[in-house]
Amino acid sequence: MKVGMTKVSVLYPTGEGKTFNMDYYLNNHIPLVEELLGDALKAATVEKGLGGGAPGSTAPYAAMGNMYFDSVKEFGKAFGPNTEKIMADLPNFTNIEPVVQISEVVA
Amino acid sequence: MKVGMTKVSVLYPTGEGKTFNMDYYLNNHIPLVEELLGDALKAATVEKGLGGGAPGSTAPYAAMGNMYFDSVKEFGKAFGPNTEKIMADLPNFTNIEPVVQISEVVA
Repeated sequence: MKVGMTKVSVLYPTGEGKTFNMDYYLNNHIPLVEELLGDALKAATVEKGLGGGAPGSTAPYAAMGNMYFDSVKEFGKAFGPNTEKIMADLPNFTNIEPVVQISEVVA
Repeated sequence: MKVGMTKVSVLYPTGEGKTFNMDYYLNNHIPLVEELLGDALKAATVEKGLGGGAPGSTAPYAAMGNMYFDSVKEFGKAFGPNTEKIMADLPNFTNIEPVVQISEVVA
């Protein structure tokens, strides 16, 4: 991903009683997001949490979803009108309230 | 980054009194990590936090550093003997204790 791009990270914290269906996420949710955001979404990547920094510790996040856009403005234009549809799909694969971070790719 | 790779995320949480020197991080810390880890480190990317999910909110993380390895084993082999040297450089650019996540790239 190129320097200067906008990265939107959607991080799903682990915790007592928290569940995350990675199959649904990969096969249904990500394709839904890709369809709704169209060309504005330059790339999407997904990671599954394996562990934390200390040996044997739990991963802070069950999953991390990353979306790349040309700018914050392009992200807003594409995501804004689809926020409701995207959020409505969350209960289909998780009971976690995600942490969202908007970043600039600097290296 | 290819599916199956190991991604190690080093996340620097924002907060009252927390500081992060992005110039030092990009120009000194990342090159140090690259030199110490050598060929085991397949790629490193960096993002600077711009904001959170809610309009006008603070980014959860001041910076996110991402390192990619062929496997968890390769990461451990490369990082283990260099952990002390890498950690000793942190006070040179931040007073934040980072959150570390080890993940598998799944998409």
